[in-house]
Amino acid sequence: MTTIAESAPRDAVARLGPRRDRELARRIARSAAAPEGAFLATDEVDGWLAERRRAHPFRVDRIPFADLDGWSFAPESGNLVHRSGRFFTVEGLRVTGTDGPFGSWHQPVIRQPEVGVLGIVVKEFQGVLHFLMQAKMEPGNRNLLQLSPTVQATRSNYTGAHRGARVRYLDYFTGPGRGRVLADVLQSEHGAWFLRKSNRNMLVEAVGDVELHEDFCWLTLGQIGRLLRRDNVVNMDARTVLACAPQAGADDTDAAALHSDTGLLSWFTGERARHDVTAERVPLASLPGWWQGDRSIEREDGRYFRVVAVGVQAGSREVGGWTQPLFEPTGTGVTAFLTRRIEGVSHLLAHARTEAGFADTVELAPTVQYTPSNYAGLPEAERPPFLDTVLGAEPSRIRYEALHSEEGGRFLNAESRYLFVEATPDEAPLEPPPGYVWVTPGQLNGLLRHNHYVNVQARTLLSCLASGAVRL
Amino acid sequence: MTTIAESAPRDAVARLGPRRDRELARRIARSAAAPEGAFLATDEVDGWLAERRRAHPFRVDRIPFADLDGWSFAPESGNLVHRSGRFFTVEGLRVTGTDGPFGSWHQPVIRQPEVGVLGIVVKEFQGVLHFLMQAKMEPGNRNLLQLSPTVQATRSNYTGAHRGARVRYLDYFTGPGRGRVLADVLQSEHGAWFLRKSNRNMLVEAVGDVELHEDFCWLTLGQIGRLLRRDNVVNMDARTVLACAPQAGADDTDAAALHSDTGLLSWFTGERARHDVTAERVPLASLPGWWQGDRSIEREDGRYFRVVAVGVQAGSREVGGWTQPLFEPTGTGVTAFLTRRIEGVSHLLAHARTEAGFADTVELAPTVQYTPSNYAGLPEAERPPFLDTVLGAEPSRIRYEALHSEEGGRFLNAESRYLFVEATPDEAPLEPPPGYVWVTPGQLNGLLRHNHYVNVQARTLLSCLASGAVRL
Repeated sequence: MTTIAESAPRDAVARLGPRRDRELARRIARSAAAPEGAFLATDEVDGWLAERRRAHPFRVDRIPFADLDGWSFAPESGNLVHRSGRFFTVEGLRVTGTDGPFGSWHQPVIRQPEVGVLGIVVKEFQGVLHFLMQAKMEPGNRNLLQLSPTVQATRSNYTGAHRGARVRYLDYFTGPGRGRVLADVLQSEHGAWFLRKSNRNMLVEAVGDVELHEDFCWLTLGQIGRLLRRDNVVNMDARTVLACAPQAGADDTDAAALHSDTGLLSWFTGERARHDVTAERVPLASLPGWWQGDRSIEREDGRYFRVVAVGVQAGSREVGGWTQPLFEPTGTGVTAFLTRRIEGVSHLLAHARTEAGFADTVELAPTVQYTPSNYAGLPEAERPPFLDTVLGAEPSRIRYEALHSEEGGRFLNAESRYLFVEATPDEAPLEPPPGYVWVTPGQLNGLLRHNHYVNVQARTLLSCLASGAVRL
Repeated sequence: MTTIAESAPRDAVARLGPRRDRELARRIARSAAAPEGAFLATDEVDGWLAERRRAHPFRVDRIPFADLDGWSFAPESGNLVHRSGRFFTVEGLRVTGTDGPFGSWHQPVIRQPEVGVLGIVVKEFQGVLHFLMQAKMEPGNRNLLQLSPTVQATRSNYTGAHRGARVRYLDYFTGPGRGRVLADVLQSEHGAWFLRKSNRNMLVEAVGDVELHEDFCWLTLGQIGRLLRRDNVVNMDARTVLACAPQAGADDTDAAALHSDTGLLSWFTGERARHDVTAERVPLASLPGWWQGDRSIEREDGRYFRVVAVGVQAGSREVGGWTQPLFEPTGTGVTAFLTRRIEGVSHLLAHARTEAGFADTVELAPTVQYTPSNYAGLPEAERPPFLDTVLGAEPSRIRYEALHSEEGGRFLNAESRYLFVEATPDEAPLEPPPGYVWVTPGQLNGLLRHNHYVNVQARTLLSCLASGAVRL
């Protein structure tokens, strides 16, 4: 990758540098504090997105599986595959050994072993870092077009399997010497629906001029934070990358917290060690408890999600139209951190959550991450912990609330209500139940330098903190 | 786990603490600088081990598979399994997509999905931290008995599947409130022979008196370092735990290095992303290229390793004798870091190595980690990089050299010659070939706070640095 080549001078002129860039977190914070930037005003973003929507009209229709072009159910396994062998497949999964009321089960899962790139180009204008955001359509988003990272590319994208145009700005993330890496880490995506999917989350500061294409705009982190207060403007891929932006609190290891960093890591290691979740690939055909029709694969009780197919018609796009399968959840999720100030220091209540598709058993998730309709009718004792605290919170205690879409390239109408809710000691004691831990936002940001500690839903909420959409 | 329960006071008396224990690395360094401790003298350790060997006489014999007690080849798969369904299994693995001259292959692999505990109890005597080491027999060690961690337990051990005695001191690692955790992290074991095996590496400082059993002794880190200069005294499990001891360099992010921490992580992320290794479990029966006899499963060309069986007869042990399969390599390994001082700062040349059994594709390994006999006869261009530099190094450039055993509970006579070799700029330029990177020992120690960055062979070499067995 580019960094090493750049920072490693030739042997003859070796120069060491500091291991840490102390200034970077301050520059990120300055951008988060900037409610306006050097270019598009925050209030103009809506109009700009509407204009981009008109420039690239799209239409998405549900279609029967039989109308999928290039996709079919494989003869023996019944897996849903593309004839190129690329993109992704929909297969079956048998899951055993999780906590919770549901024990073991079967489900469809998306398998896409390749690592994609989610990258944002960053550049300083008028002394403030700006982020190059893209107006990008994804068929599963309810409003189709949202603010996305500069680059959002699967390997199939950038090796040409889509037969589309070259991915713009990709060289900043894969080419040699086009920028300075500020963050670069593999992070998981939805472990409930993806099998061991990771994407590379990157922030790269451009060196030299950056050509601006009409589908892109420069925004400060503070502008993005203002947009994150609104429903369905900033897409999931942008949120997860922004969460990885280095914050001052990450390295500030002299800061106070309820648990030391070592204590937190030890607790997390214990959580990883005590869970034995196995997830085995099985044929999609005849998946126990699931029913396959012409237009959907769904559970016999109608819960959780279904697999469907859509056709995308593009008014003016190089790649033309296409068809693809999508996963469609059957309800809106509720995803929330409970927060408390402990002796003046803000803490979040994180949950060590098992998701069948995680590469490593457990990741830190928000306190609450459930689709309430899936739990309807369960006896009180089996209700997910803290869910009712969040659902019943008085408005004065809700510090943040907005509806955001999950990955619109794979999920259809997958929306969650994201919240920060201030909790009382009664609701959320300092010694929470097993599987929960109080952490500071800085501790979580420090963990985000490394793989697979913090799940994608928590990263959405942390992007709201990083960008100033919420202040605790 | 214990830490949280201890450090989280009741709500009524909440007290925050610093995230980092600044004193700890200094206390570890003080112990590493202590060539003698408060108890057994370093020169007496040999005698003490000999005495322990006499107290617990063991005899290990090779036996045919048919004489294994409780182990058998499963009817259809041919996998070697224990009738209890516990311990481990020997299965087949199909590996595709690695670098190197060998492309794709089949091999037997050890599958042991449970997470074990490798833990050392630490306590201060006369102002210096001492480590509670055990004289422990493992059937695969050439000299059987070596210095081991205080606790070395699979989950089968401590849940009683071995029908043996209770594991001594285990409560310090799994019970509530018996100590203060100094390090606690999941680390991989040999990815060439284990499928996704992780153990919990823990250092726990005891609170209050610790009863001393006759098979245990207290040693300073400096004493252990002196013993690490000798062949086959300190076992692999002890070495990997000691490597995780926090060093001053880990947190010293203002220190100089050739690459910033972010640059290093970005390079590593790129290495993980660019490798597509798949390892699929297949039946052990009829494994292509392997031949199964009465006493071994081995490759038709006799290379790499074979699966064998041993019987252990114990003179005086609670658990009595037992039989088990072991993996036996066909040659002695060579495992070495090339080192250079770059502008006065010591650096190691690390290799992003793929091993089929790694949980996440790639880990940082020593510069050289090969069994030379497996590469005999290959054309010059296909010789492993840097191997000949290590094999041909002048004695004055060898900063450290000793023979150590790998996991003696699973491997028979698996020895490697471990070295630190000072390289010239010609031999190891600052811009090394793809897949190699210069790092400081402090950077690697920082990564050892997290899962699966640094492989077990590199951890052996880092334990030599941590304990002062070698100074660069």
